[in-house]
Parts: sequence; structure tokens; C-alpha cells
Amino acid sequence: MDETKHAVREIMIERFSGVAGSMVLDRVVAEEPLELRLEGHPVAVLMRTPGFDTDLVSGFLMTEGILNSLLQVRKMEADGNRMLVFLNDGERVDIGKLSRNMFAGSSCGICGKATLDAVFSEFPKIVVRRLPSPDVLLSAPDKLLSRQENFSATGGLHAAGLFGFDGELLGLREDIGRHNAVDKVIGHALREGISTADCWLLVSGRVSFEIMQKALAVRIPCVAAISAPSSLAVDFAKGSGQALVGFLRPPGFNRYA
Amino acid sequence: MDETKHAVREIMIERFSGVAGSMVLDRVVAEEPLELRLEGHPVAVLMRTPGFDTDLVSGFLMTEGILNSLLQVRKMEADGNRMLVFLNDGERVDIGKLSRNMFAGSSCGICGKATLDAVFSEFPKIVVRRLPSPDVLLSAPDKLLSRQENFSATGGLHAAGLFGFDGELLGLREDIGRHNAVDKVIGHALREGISTADCWLLVSGRVSFEIMQKALAVRIPCVAAISAPSSLAVDFAKGSGQALVGFLRPPGFNRYA
Repeated sequence: MDETKHAVREIMIERFSGVAGSMVLDRVVAEEPLELRLEGHPVAVLMRTPGFDTDLVSGFLMTEGILNSLLQVRKMEADGNRMLVFLNDGERVDIGKLSRNMFAGSSCGICGKATLDAVFSEFPKIVVRRLPSPDVLLSAPDKLLSRQENFSATGGLHAAGLFGFDGELLGLREDIGRHNAVDKVIGHALREGISTADCWLLVSGRVSFEIMQKALAVRIPCVAAISAPSSLAVDFAKGSGQALVGFLRPPGFNRYA
Repeated sequence: MDETKHAVREIMIERFSGVAGSMVLDRVVAEEPLELRLEGHPVAVLMRTPGFDTDLVSGFLMTEGILNSLLQVRKMEADGNRMLVFLNDGERVDIGKLSRNMFAGSSCGICGKATLDAVFSEFPKIVVRRLPSPDVLLSAPDKLLSRQENFSATGGLHAAGLFGFDGELLGLREDIGRHNAVDKVIGHALREGISTADCWLLVSGRVSFEIMQKALAVRIPCVAAISAPSSLAVDFAKGSGQALVGFLRPPGFNRYA
């Protein structure tokens, strides 16, 4: 079996060069949740690129210190986006060590669609979405870069900026974590009384499912990225009604939704 | 108060150009845990770059759907690397929604040092660390890139490779998540019976604390990155005995520990 064949998905996108757009076939990285069950108990959901799931779960269990050796494992069974791990008789693991990626309930969903449905049941979709004009979009990366205070010093920070639909940069935050940069700039806007429903978000790196979810939670109608979106981010935007722009690099960009 | 002043830290590193190294002053992005307490209960630990912590917590509580409005908050109190959030009388929140970044116990630590101490108490330090030769290091990025099957197609994947100390590429995995790529290649090696203690790890992006922790858990003595390490990754390596190389871009690289 070719484990890499599910890592990439082909979709139709609208590629803009300047203000002119045309439909082209493009490839995006696949992103889907993998639910990890240990002895039948759901213990973690990893948002991952499909393929080599047995490697992923083996590595995760070891590097998180849940197992001391793979010899503790009796068998692993893949069941779609679920991986069932069974231990040898007498083996015990410390579930408390699963410090990250834990889901509290059973609503985590085991496929991308279930995940999206769960989100959309909590956060209403955006009905009338606004897209900034190509000119406004294309002027934004320079504005972001010129205000990034720390990146040039270290090369190690993600940035997130909130822009008005007229192109004004309303806030910018940097962080080593891409989610944190988004949370910081959104928190800044909300504390300043800025209506996030009237802003669009630009992130310096890639866009995953979770960035789209954070944006939807505060009604941001458009998310743009300097780099690539994941497949689940594209699906998310198509479902949520948000606009999604990627590879925003003058003189062009891609529109995925 | 200048909120950005803690985002960058100056440290002494060894910069190599080819095989010749010299000590220089360099800057790395600061990374420290922020413990979030809601009404006194520890509910989340965010690994973040210090600064704008009130923005971060405000945004996090809103984008994760824990609060509907910041008006629910009576006050936020910063206490070092801890943020105390108090709600107005009668306000209730659904702690179950805190689906990510949850820590199970109280051992999470509220400063970088406590975090490191907690890790080192679980995973023994590496006493005799091995560093691949400069030639082996400098030959690795090309090997990684030439084997990356999906990156060029999408521009959206992290890669992690395990190398022998002779420079041989023993395994490579790609994923949209940088932790997943590391878990996958480590899982692959362990399943193949490769001794991870005799390998070094190369990641395509940045190195955070958690990557170092995953490497230590399976006794990998050296971690290298094409891009930058965080300050906590550097502290981690100094404490764990691991070697840490960053900006591995021929003809040079930086050695941080």
C-alpha cells in the first residue's frame, strides 16, 4: 500500500494574478483527525495528514511517555480515521500522561465531516461573506512584514494581522505558536472594541482547520495566508461560508473558497 | 510597558561556516508556558511567547468558545507565568469545552524551569552526547529535500528525518503537523528496530520545547533544524545534554547547545 497517496488532495481553486482570476486544478495537503483508542477508551485525537498512521501512533505513545516500549503493544488496528491499540495482558499505562490533544467528550468525531459538523453546530455559519478586494489583499503582506518587530531578529515567529476591508492594519501580534498569534490579535481586537465580523485575518504561515475554527468563533468572514491551507481548512471554509485565500504573495494569490 | 521586550532573548551560540565555528551573540524567540486559571482552577497551559498575555487569554477564551463575550470577565490578573481569570457573579462556563492544551495534573509547572524539571524527572538526561560532524550535518538538508515527496506539490508539509551519525538517511516522514512528522519518523524507526539513541533528528521547520522533549523520550542525542529554535528548546537542550543545531543551511549552521 502506498501510504503517501492520501497525503495530498486535488481541488479546483481560483488563481488570481493581480485582479484577474481563473479556475485551475491545485493540490492541498490532506488534514484529518485520527482518534486514538487505547484498550477501547478514546484518549486522544490527532489532527494529522493521513498515511503512516501506525508510525504516528507508535511514535506518539513513545514520545509522550505513555509506553516504555512498543513490545507492550499486542496489536494495532486501523479502522478508518480511528486507531485501536491493544496492550499485552498485564500491561498498564498512565492515561494521565496524555497531556495534549485530549478531548473531553465523545463528540470529537472520527472523520473530517463529523468534526466539521460538530463545529458548525456550535458556531453558526457566516451567511453573507465579504472578500477584500484583490488590491487590498495584495497590499497586506508588506504591511504585515513592516510591522513585524521580532521576526527579522530571530526568524522564529508566526504573525497574525487583522485588517479592515479598506486595507487598514488594525492589529498585529507575533508568537512562536501560530494559534497563539491568532488568539492574541483577536483578543487585542475584542478588548479594543473592534468588531471582528468587519475584519479579515492574515496569517504569516499556513492555515489549518483550527485557525478557521478560531476565526469563525468570532465571526471573521475571511482568512488569508502567506502559505498553504490544509484540505480540512478548505472544507471548513466551504462549509462555514468563510472566504479562504492562500499563497498571498504579490502579484498573485489563490482563492480556495 | 513594552509588551514585546520579553519576546526575544539574547544568548551566546557557536556559529559554524563550513567546519569552522566561532562564538557569537544571537537572538532567539522566547517560549514559556502560561498557566490559565479560571476561578482558581488550572484549566490550560499555553506554550507561548511572553507578552500580550491578556490578549492571548482573551482571544483563547473566545475562540475556543469558552466565553461568549469578554463582558463575562470581572478581572484578569497576571502573576508571572500564570493568568488568573475571574468571572462576574452568576457567570458559568463550560470547562468541558477546553479541548486542547489541557494538563491532567498539577505538575505542569508555571515557569520554564519548573517545566524542564518536570520533564527531566521523567526522562533521564543524556550523559554523553554525540554531535554529527559538520560535513554530515551540512549534507543532510539536501537529502531531506530530495526525499520529500509531497512538499513540492503543496508547499504545506513539515518533514522530519532520522539520520545515522555517518549521514545515512534512515527514515523520513511528512505531516501537516510538525509534532506528527516527528512522531511518525520515530514510530517508523522503533518499529524497524532502529536504535534511536544512535540517530540524530532533522526537522524542516522550527524547534520548540516539545520536539526536544519527544526526542529525549526516545534518547535521541542531537536535534537539528533548518529554521530557528525557541529559547525553551535551547534551555531544554542545555539541561538534557542533547546537542541542538539550528539554521542548518549550507554552508553554515548554528550550534545552540
